[in-house]
Amino acid sequence: MSEDPLRIAVAQLARFPGIGERTATRLAYWLLQQPEEVAGEIGQALVALREALHPCEVCCDLSASSPCRRCADPRRSDGLICVVERPQDIGAIESSGEFRGRFHVLHGAISPLDGVGPDQLRIKELLARLGDGADEVLLATDPDVEGDATALYLARLIKPLGIRVTRLAHGIAVGTELEYADRSSVARALEHRREM
Amino acid sequence: MSEDPLRIAVAQLARFPGIGERTATRLAYWLLQQPEEVAGEIGQALVALREALHPCEVCCDLSASSPCRRCADPRRSDGLICVVERPQDIGAIESSGEFRGRFHVLHGAISPLDGVGPDQLRIKELLARLGDGADEVLLATDPDVEGDATALYLARLIKPLGIRVTRLAHGIAVGTELEYADRSSVARALEHRREM
Repeated sequence: MSEDPLRIAVAQLARFPGIGERTATRLAYWLLQQPEEVAGEIGQALVALREALHPCEVCCDLSASSPCRRCADPRRSDGLICVVERPQDIGAIESSGEFRGRFHVLHGAISPLDGVGPDQLRIKELLARLGDGADEVLLATDPDVEGDATALYLARLIKPLGIRVTRLAHGIAVGTELEYADRSSVARALEHRREM
Repeated sequence: MSEDPLRIAVAQLARFPGIGERTATRLAYWLLQQPEEVAGEIGQALVALREALHPCEVCCDLSASSPCRRCADPRRSDGLICVVERPQDIGAIESSGEFRGRFHVLHGAISPLDGVGPDQLRIKELLARLGDGADEVLLATDPDVEGDATALYLARLIKPLGIRVTRLAHGIAVGTELEYADRSSVARALEHRREM
């Protein structure tokens, strides 16, 4: 029974967050009704995703190339680095159309309860970049306890280096994750970023 | 841009019914945060699902073997064949614990509006089985317009052969798809199946 391909596929689909066994069963049966190549196309794309994307050596975003295309783009300003928790937060900042600087991805936020300290984040890599012409670091971590703690921690590290440290303005409702903010709120938050 | 593995993966995940681009993006980023083997395991399971499962030559259910394990099971009665629209409906009947006969999967229901006529269903395969000791055909198509039309069509074909034709009792609420019925309703519907 444990080798039944249907049960295996359902169990694997149910690993996705927000997809329970009932939904996974629906998706698996849907796949079985599609032309034979559909399952292969979806499956291959998932395999390729994880094999092709690796952290950029500069900004730690996940990318098919290193340095990634944003780090390699000469039209972006080296003077401003926007620090985010997750790769998907970059899309939210970019969609505002108001940001022309660089990015840095921490891959998380300081959260003692989850066992995440500064050493688990890409902070060393951020500090290593600051000598390359940065005159402002914009902290765009989430407006929650972990994001605020991370911003405070970074501000204390970076300000003594003589670099301006700013924080996204509270145009974004507290409790909302950056990834899901609407683009006009993000635009306002960029515009009103404040000194720390 | 069209070769970006992340965009490809998001587009592929968004092919699933009920998964929009936003959810697909969430799932793709979740995958990227998992250990490297997770995406491969899920992807391979989807590929294997479609490659391993094919219609059973007897009952037309999707199975890794043909005849499938239910058709090969000598403890089941050949006298009673339960006809369902979809492979996943079999699980609903089985979960009632009251059925010991055989199954036949039509892979759909007659629906002129969707261009599905009797020729698109596995009706020929059903008729070919009726000589093998069947004395009752239980029609377990959905209690909706298409399922009722299909049941009526099959009853007119099969009754002249001198075989008893029954229909699941209306213990299942009209409008509910069989796949999602609770097991006690299914048990009652089996018990009260009526002559057609």
